[in-house]
Amino acid sequence: MRFISETTFDGVSERLFTLDGIPGVLWTPADATGGRPLVVLAHGGGQHKRAPGLVARARRYVTGCGFAVAAIDAPGHGDRPRTGQDERFGEGIRERMAAGEPIGPYIARHNAALAVRAVPEWRATLDALQHLDCVGADGPVGFWGVSLGSVIGVPFAVAEPRITAAVFGLAGHETLAGTAARVTIPVEFLLQWDDELVPRDSGLALFDAFASREKTLHANPGRHADVPAFEPDSSLRFFARHLLRGDDAAGRLQRA
Amino acid sequence: MRFISETTFDGVSERLFTLDGIPGVLWTPADATGGRPLVVLAHGGGQHKRAPGLVARARRYVTGCGFAVAAIDAPGHGDRPRTGQDERFGEGIRERMAAGEPIGPYIARHNAALAVRAVPEWRATLDALQHLDCVGADGPVGFWGVSLGSVIGVPFAVAEPRITAAVFGLAGHETLAGTAARVTIPVEFLLQWDDELVPRDSGLALFDAFASREKTLHANPGRHADVPAFEPDSSLRFFARHLLRGDDAAGRLQRA
Repeated sequence: MRFISETTFDGVSERLFTLDGIPGVLWTPADATGGRPLVVLAHGGGQHKRAPGLVARARRYVTGCGFAVAAIDAPGHGDRPRTGQDERFGEGIRERMAAGEPIGPYIARHNAALAVRAVPEWRATLDALQHLDCVGADGPVGFWGVSLGSVIGVPFAVAEPRITAAVFGLAGHETLAGTAARVTIPVEFLLQWDDELVPRDSGLALFDAFASREKTLHANPGRHADVPAFEPDSSLRFFARHLLRGDDAAGRLQRA
Repeated sequence: MRFISETTFDGVSERLFTLDGIPGVLWTPADATGGRPLVVLAHGGGQHKRAPGLVARARRYVTGCGFAVAAIDAPGHGDRPRTGQDERFGEGIRERMAAGEPIGPYIARHNAALAVRAVPEWRATLDALQHLDCVGADGPVGFWGVSLGSVIGVPFAVAEPRITAAVFGLAGHETLAGTAARVTIPVEFLLQWDDELVPRDSGLALFDAFASREKTLHANPGRHADVPAFEPDSSLRFFARHLLRGDDAAGRLQRA
């Protein structure tokens, strides 16, 4: 893991890094020393590690709970090269939209293929992050990722016992239910009631598939990209419940 | 409205009252002067105005946001006399359980009849509460009630424009969907994924029926009475969002 730059703004340090050619970013409190819980963010399809929503979420988690927060570019996204397969995917989307065909199943298949490449990258990133003094190897790890982020995150959480709580959502059961049935950690699951890419019943079936004893579904009206602005705050409280010890949680959230 | 007793514990004043024979309770900050948002709590079937869950919730809302909080006994509940109809309902439940029959539809019909009596009582209670100096007539009003509390609360919210945000749940669409379609205020809706009284599809259909632009479904595993302990905190934040002005919300929740 090689750090490229560091900027600090309003109490939050943002460091860009690369790890075996994968570009990433790490947010921490500006004065962070010693280990702390880590939350990793997996962006959605067509987005990247520093998309505005991810940056705002990372800053909220750092200032709200003192977490370390990290994101990397998914294969074919952000600062990473596009393969022929990535280019054909974009053409496939355009063709299907021009023909008035549904694009949800096509995206789901492509994302499932991306996840096969992304999960080992995320595991290597986790190894490297836990070697940093300001993260440490002993703290709990949370995962947040919806849409493509969940297609990657569900198998990542199954493969990776270090992840102890996860926010998933905006994904359907077709390619994920079998894997979800092996997830037992606490899950907060986001569903958009009028999602044009994921049919409502498919999202509900994926929520149903998780084997977790604690899982909570948050469904809101609107399309795929219309998740309301109060959900990031809810996810912060979810991670505070599961990644902080009781004393820490009360004190840190008071200051949030 | 006649006050019968006042006790103060840990910064929260609890005053018992009666209004035209209806017993109620009002919780406020111990030092409350001047108007403030009001949240009214409608208890579930077989419970009463001071059931432990209601008292804990009221104290949390008072200490968390400085709200006034009130509850009354529903017809045939708590300190109120039982009618012949109430007695027959209890027998009807026992008979159906002994025969292995589902009791959900029977309870739903009984609760719908109770709601016809309860809504005018709640409106009169709201009138009286808003005459108090520590509540006032100008503040917003929130409603919280699940199960029987929603069977009463959905028509109450439709009849009563003073209610500007509501938490409902643990109820099905059969007797309520038509009324829910006239609800336009923000709603947080609780659903238990394995509810033995309300079939999952019936609860989802009721959530779907609300006409509110902002409505958010929180579904959790478990039976009717198993709503997890983190939901009251979520409802506090829902009411803070909708009943407090921006400045108040941030400041008060910091201290919560």
